[in-house]
Amino acid sequence: VRSAALAERYRQVRGQTCSLAARLSAEDCQIQSMPDASPTKWHLAHMTWFFETFVLEPYEPGFQPHDPAFRVLFNSYYTAVGERHPRPQRGLIGRPTLAEVLDYRTQVDARIAQLLRHPVTPAVAALLELGLQHEQQHQELILTDIKHALSCNPLHPVYSPGWPLAAVAPVPLQWMAFAGGLVEIGHAGPQAGFAFDNEWPRHKVYLEPYALAQRLSTHGEWIEFIADGGYRDPRLWLSAGWDWVQAQRIEAPLYWRRSGEDSADWHTFTLHGLVPVDPHTPIVHVSYFEADAFARWSQARLPSEMEWEHAAGQWPPQEPARCNFVETRALHPMPLAHGQSDGLAQLYGDAWEWTRSSYEPYPGFRAWSGAVGEYNGKFMCNQYVLRGGSCATPGDHVRASYRNFFPADARWQFSGVRLARDAA
Amino acid sequence: VRSAALAERYRQVRGQTCSLAARLSAEDCQIQSMPDASPTKWHLAHMTWFFETFVLEPYEPGFQPHDPAFRVLFNSYYTAVGERHPRPQRGLIGRPTLAEVLDYRTQVDARIAQLLRHPVTPAVAALLELGLQHEQQHQELILTDIKHALSCNPLHPVYSPGWPLAAVAPVPLQWMAFAGGLVEIGHAGPQAGFAFDNEWPRHKVYLEPYALAQRLSTHGEWIEFIADGGYRDPRLWLSAGWDWVQAQRIEAPLYWRRSGEDSADWHTFTLHGLVPVDPHTPIVHVSYFEADAFARWSQARLPSEMEWEHAAGQWPPQEPARCNFVETRALHPMPLAHGQSDGLAQLYGDAWEWTRSSYEPYPGFRAWSGAVGEYNGKFMCNQYVLRGGSCATPGDHVRASYRNFFPADARWQFSGVRLARDAA
Amino acid sequence: VRSAALAERYRQVRGQTCSLAARLSAEDCQIQSMPDASPTKWHLAHMTWFFETFVLEPYEPGFQPHDPAFRVLFNSYYTAVGERHPRPQRGLIGRPTLAEVLDYRTQVDARIAQLLRHPVTPAVAALLELGLQHEQQHQELILTDIKHALSCNPLHPVYSPGWPLAAVAPVPLQWMAFAGGLVEIGHAGPQAGFAFDNEWPRHKVYLEPYALAQRLSTHGEWIEFIADGGYRDPRLWLSAGWDWVQAQRIEAPLYWRRSGEDSADWHTFTLHGLVPVDPHTPIVHVSYFEADAFARWSQARLPSEMEWEHAAGQWPPQEPARCNFVETRALHPMPLAHGQSDGLAQLYGDAWEWTRSSYEPYPGFRAWSGAVGEYNGKFMCNQYVLRGGSCATPGDHVRASYRNFFPADARWQFSGVRLARDAA
Amino acid sequence: VRSAALAERYRQVRGQTCSLAARLSAEDCQIQSMPDASPTKWHLAHMTWFFETFVLEPYEPGFQPHDPAFRVLFNSYYTAVGERHPRPQRGLIGRPTLAEVLDYRTQVDARIAQLLRHPVTPAVAALLELGLQHEQQHQELILTDIKHALSCNPLHPVYSPGWPLAAVAPVPLQWMAFAGGLVEIGHAGPQAGFAFDNEWPRHKVYLEPYALAQRLSTHGEWIEFIADGGYRDPRLWLSAGWDWVQAQRIEAPLYWRRSGEDSADWHTFTLHGLVPVDPHTPIVHVSYFEADAFARWSQARLPSEMEWEHAAGQWPPQEPARCNFVETRALHPMPLAHGQSDGLAQLYGDAWEWTRSSYEPYPGFRAWSGAVGEYNGKFMCNQYVLRGGSCATPGDHVRASYRNFFPADARWQFSGVRLARDAA
Repeated sequence: VRSAALAERYRQVRGQTCSLAARLSAEDCQIQSMPDASPTKWHLAHMTWFFETFVLEPYEPGFQPHDPAFRVLFNSYYTAVGERHPRPQRGLIGRPTLAEVLDYRTQVDARIAQLLRHPVTPAVAALLELGLQHEQQHQELILTDIKHALSCNPLHPVYSPGWPLAAVAPVPLQWMAFAGGLVEIGHAGPQAGFAFDNEWPRHKVYLEPYALAQRLSTHGEWIEFIADGGYRDPRLWLSAGWDWVQAQRIEAPLYWRRSGEDSADWHTFTLHGLVPVDPHTPIVHVSYFEADAFARWSQARLPSEMEWEHAAGQWPPQEPARCNFVETRALHPMPLAHGQSDGLAQLYGDAWEWTRSSYEPYPGFRAWSGAVGEYNGKFMCNQYVLRGGSCATPGDHVRASYRNFFPADARWQFSGVRLARDAA
Repeated sequence: VRSAALAERYRQVRGQTCSLAARLSAEDCQIQSMPDASPTKWHLAHMTWFFETFVLEPYEPGFQPHDPAFRVLFNSYYTAVGERHPRPQRGLIGRPTLAEVLDYRTQVDARIAQLLRHPVTPAVAALLELGLQHEQQHQELILTDIKHALSCNPLHPVYSPGWPLAAVAPVPLQWMAFAGGLVEIGHAGPQAGFAFDNEWPRHKVYLEPYALAQRLSTHGEWIEFIADGGYRDPRLWLSAGWDWVQAQRIEAPLYWRRSGEDSADWHTFTLHGLVPVDPHTPIVHVSYFEADAFARWSQARLPSEMEWEHAAGQWPPQEPARCNFVETRALHPMPLAHGQSDGLAQLYGDAWEWTRSSYEPYPGFRAWSGAVGEYNGKFMCNQYVLRGGSCATPGDHVRASYRNFFPADARWQFSGVRLARDAA
Repeated sequence: VRSAALAERYRQVRGQTCSLAARLSAEDCQIQSMPDASPTKWHLAHMTWFFETFVLEPYEPGFQPHDPAFRVLFNSYYTAVGERHPRPQRGLIGRPTLAEVLDYRTQVDARIAQLLRHPVTPAVAALLELGLQHEQQHQELILTDIKHALSCNPLHPVYSPGWPLAAVAPVPLQWMAFAGGLVEIGHAGPQAGFAFDNEWPRHKVYLEPYALAQRLSTHGEWIEFIADGGYRDPRLWLSAGWDWVQAQRIEAPLYWRRSGEDSADWHTFTLHGLVPVDPHTPIVHVSYFEADAFARWSQARLPSEMEWEHAAGQWPPQEPARCNFVETRALHPMPLAHGQSDGLAQLYGDAWEWTRSSYEPYPGFRAWSGAVGEYNGKFMCNQYVLRGGSCATPGDHVRASYRNFFPADARWQFSGVRLARDAA
Repeated sequence: VRSAALAERYRQVRGQTCSLAARLSAEDCQIQSMPDASPTKWHLAHMTWFFETFVLEPYEPGFQPHDPAFRVLFNSYYTAVGERHPRPQRGLIGRPTLAEVLDYRTQVDARIAQLLRHPVTPAVAALLELGLQHEQQHQELILTDIKHALSCNPLHPVYSPGWPLAAVAPVPLQWMAFAGGLVEIGHAGPQAGFAFDNEWPRHKVYLEPYALAQRLSTHGEWIEFIADGGYRDPRLWLSAGWDWVQAQRIEAPLYWRRSGEDSADWHTFTLHGLVPVDPHTPIVHVSYFEADAFARWSQARLPSEMEWEHAAGQWPPQEPARCNFVETRALHPMPLAHGQSDGLAQLYGDAWEWTRSSYEPYPGFRAWSGAVGEYNGKFMCNQYVLRGGSCATPGDHVRASYRNFFPADARWQFSGVRLARDAA
């Protein structure tokens, strides 16, 4: 039974990947627009490499590699697996072609399906599940990376036609208070479903009383921040953030363009093309530096990841259901409508929420054993935790304990802001 | 009374600075060997600028600036004070000369002394105390920066003759266990003496049981780490650390030189010149990346800053007395002798101890008001906390709650390692 | 009559371009492997842009742009035409797709054909001819750029199968003497056929007596240079060349790989894949710096471009016929066979020959008027002249007065060496 | 006799160096403000190193090095002599101190004086003369390098007080025609006095008729160039020059500062401090790129070095006498007064004149034998020739055949412009 269910889930998740790529030409899939982003073709191959390397190689009887060269070409960062093609040069690999990579997917899918015709051990099932979670992470990266790539084209090419927004009335920001105290965070363990190793172990933390904004900060509020000189006042910024603003000449979120040279009439590039900035939608594509400065300007601060996770479990626990995940096909954060939510709105989906917490191991953290132990732990340095998922995240992928992480200057993810403050 | 005591303390601390610089020529004091380090002359002027700007300017009747140009020239990073000379170009300021800077010190000292002939308000007293604490921080930086500058000279010039080491027998590493639980850390507040704003407020944290090594890790243990391929095995390193090792071709701590091309016979540059590496002295001049990799290789980890501070307060509380601070004039970490300590040895002095904790605001943190509010808070990003002071720190400058911080790749401070691990 | 002949020549040259691209996938055509190289797709579009902008726009009745965005997207460096897409980002343009670019070519070709159904003015004919010469230059660049792109793929993909070499016996190097004196160089003017503006005016130069090697220097001679420590002896190198060798860690020509780590058994990447270095073929893919150092090691020097051009016109004038141009499909320099040539062998084709002459305007030089005036003149700085064409050059494209030019560190062209020396 | 004269000349030239440095403090002498410039202290030591290494070491009986470490520390670029301290780190050498370097000079001077108490061979005399010519080149570099260093100080420190300018009426630009033809350039050989190896051999060149401006271009003409948008029109610039303008955000010559943000009221930093730009003085501190663009804007061009040298020998031959060399102590280019000159004015002194000629070996060039052979030849790449000397050059140092050379973007020398054009 388990194998059959796994096979079905495998088929479904893998199929979603291909449907995301189906809107893109072979040329689109070839492009790497910066070292941090990867070509769609590389993503398609790498996800398959993951299953071939970590599932088929150890567990398929008589395993033969699909192509021995792929072991190096499509390894992302697993040093225990061996050599890797340099990350900034992923866009230089013309061959295999997209068709050959899709064939690689088909072949490996068939071999996994064959494996799943029989019952599998828990170890195999766990690796398959990890591979599917990994696949979902790369589904989001396909969207954020191609958005960046398309944004480099002065023709403003469209990934998906159909602008999803209708007019709404703005919802004022309100504060929700939380008492804190000695609480527990972290994932409850295998019996509670899948979690990455960085969500374990569940552990005690002590929280002072705090409050969170009931909704995400908006594009309209960000326009006020700009108009008030937010990008020109060093007192609002972390020192490293101010250096970044000066060196990169930052004056607005990523993808924003002025209509004219001195215009305050902002447009932004989206997966639906270039559109006017909608003031009621949640802000996205801001760095940790910007999020932190905006919070200071707002006389607030960013939440810690512990505060966020604790709040997500309160009266009643927030659930991802009916949120703006990738399945809505909006591919853009959506405005909050009046009466849409009683508690913490937009907690899941729409925009990843920067926290003030640097990405660190939980007390007692142990990385997974074997090569997959490189999955998370070795990145726990100079990165900040984001919570809650975005409009590009698969809806069944996140949970309250889920920890995403990026460096303080990263902006190409759908990263936004929920304000916090100490309780009065 | 208070004014008289303050005046005496001022005279004494300021005099220590000049005695540190007295060993250096005008040429030595001019050199800036990297953007992170400053010329001695700049330090001498900047410390004086601090008193002139934050004490004399607001509180001296009929204040006139010593030289209006100094306001820009010797401002380090206080944007609220105005423009600053670019940090990497501090070494390009030939004028004022060293003699003129020393005269600046003398003049400002006289004006402060005049101010202290009368009782001062608590606000003035607090700013003077902050200036003296600031002075002590720069005393340490004078030593670490000139060490770096001298190390760039192939003649291996000596800052201070007289090598302080005598032979000792090694002390084996032992583990000391701590129960943890819901504890408090942070400075107890003004009534408990001076503290920086980043040490406040005292607050509760929950600690899992843990153990600390009773002494610092040594140069000898580091030689083993090197010999075992520590710098060549990516599995021991954080991802960012491995990138750094590769890009910078790191293969030993800063200042180490091999005797011959392939020799394992290491020398190290010290403030006493180039000397053979002594295996029993605590390791210094390693980055956070190296400290973390070494800990992993040791099947241990770095302590968190909460663990460190909590342990420092236990049976009995460790005290800085009789530690290897700058007053010993060793200017190098000293080996632990048998029977030298019952509890946590070398907790203060010798080497700053890297913790795994990123430098973040404590819950409820408020920066000081006014321009001095830029002192600490704006650096709380992409830095790691070090604890305990070093052989270059004034002995009355540190305390259990003291938080030093540097980026993960910084090595020119006297930064070392104390191992930690989860309790069994 | 003239229009018909032009139309036929247009059809033929444009067709050659497409046949060069026909071996490449849409993915291959997308890749830009370094800022100096361009994607094949960009080349295909840019050549068409040239005809659309410089011929159709001013001369086609009722001209409408094929796509207004292409004016910016496919402009290389003509500031008078307006904005340009940044050169290093040509590989980020996924759309238009390859199919759309090929359609662009087809449409513009049809419009040019329509224009040529009627007699055209000499100005139009001249611009068309310029466009075709330009097309031929980009035909060579398609090959050199894709060679570089494919070389970045660890799979060593093949552009064209079929290795063209048969074994030959080596031909010893001999010197041919030239008397020099007051001679003329430069193109004789329009009546003598097409030439670029940089070949004009024909003018007098005074040459001291000199001698040229009768053949190109070979891969075998280069292996001797390497074995003799050529890349490790600074006395052989220009100062800037030695800096380049050190900074780039150069130890062999571009595309060479050792079989093993310390092996002297060299392979090289070619358009036919990775092959062993053949000692009798002319050396290619060396920089001016390497060519100069090799010449010094050979106790010789590089010829000046005046010497080269003067020699090319002597007893009897050398002709490009039967040389190894792109039409042989060897796509690699070919060894000289005994008895193959009486005079200066391999003067045309095989490898562009570095001269010691910096690329400067001839006395009385005038750039073409209008936007095409930017074709050549503005590059006359910090570049060196190469002469004679290569195995990737169309055979009817070069002539004795033809001046190619690249910076001193460029290696991705088929650039080689003919030695010269002062007459005894 | 010869030895006595040499000793006197040695004493005199060496003394001039010290008098140039006498205005500078130990701190000033320590500063290296960019990799291309050197600290005064390094210059002082290096010039002495030259005599010690190339004269004393081979020719002094029982030679012992003054300090063996100096061989590496003060070697500039002579690979045949051995290792060198890295050029960008010359400013990091605090020890030896300035006093120790001056003592080094005194000691070596005494040893040279001792050597010259007896007759010396022509080889020794030639090396001593080369050392003195070398010393004079570094005298100019001391001034240009310290000017750059002082310019980095926001206090605008003064090297030498006393602004030398008096008001003059402008002299209109006039053209002087030269017939050209087959002429000879280059130095006539040892019998005609000292020359560097790069001035040999004298050889024939063929010149088309040309004309030169009778005076240097002025600061006032440059202000017109700026006002006319000269720095914003890419059509005026070489491609590499335009890239440089864009990347470096160049909008005026080096050392120019606007009085206000948008002011056309220019000041410039001089060795006498910050002063208003005087419109009648020759322009200085422009790069080859700027000189070339300015010439194009002026509907003229730069002269070739052959044209310059040929013109310098005409009716009557221009002589350096009474020119504005370093001996005038103006240390700034001086305006031409009416009636000051019949022929080519300001040909010597005032400003080095950029030529269009890249720095190349003359036909038949042979570098000197031995280590001094690295003096000139290895720099013959990507540099442009300047002629005539400047206000910082010793008056007896230049001659008609003298070739100075710098990269196209260098601006910190006193480099200016004399316009040329083809004869009508």
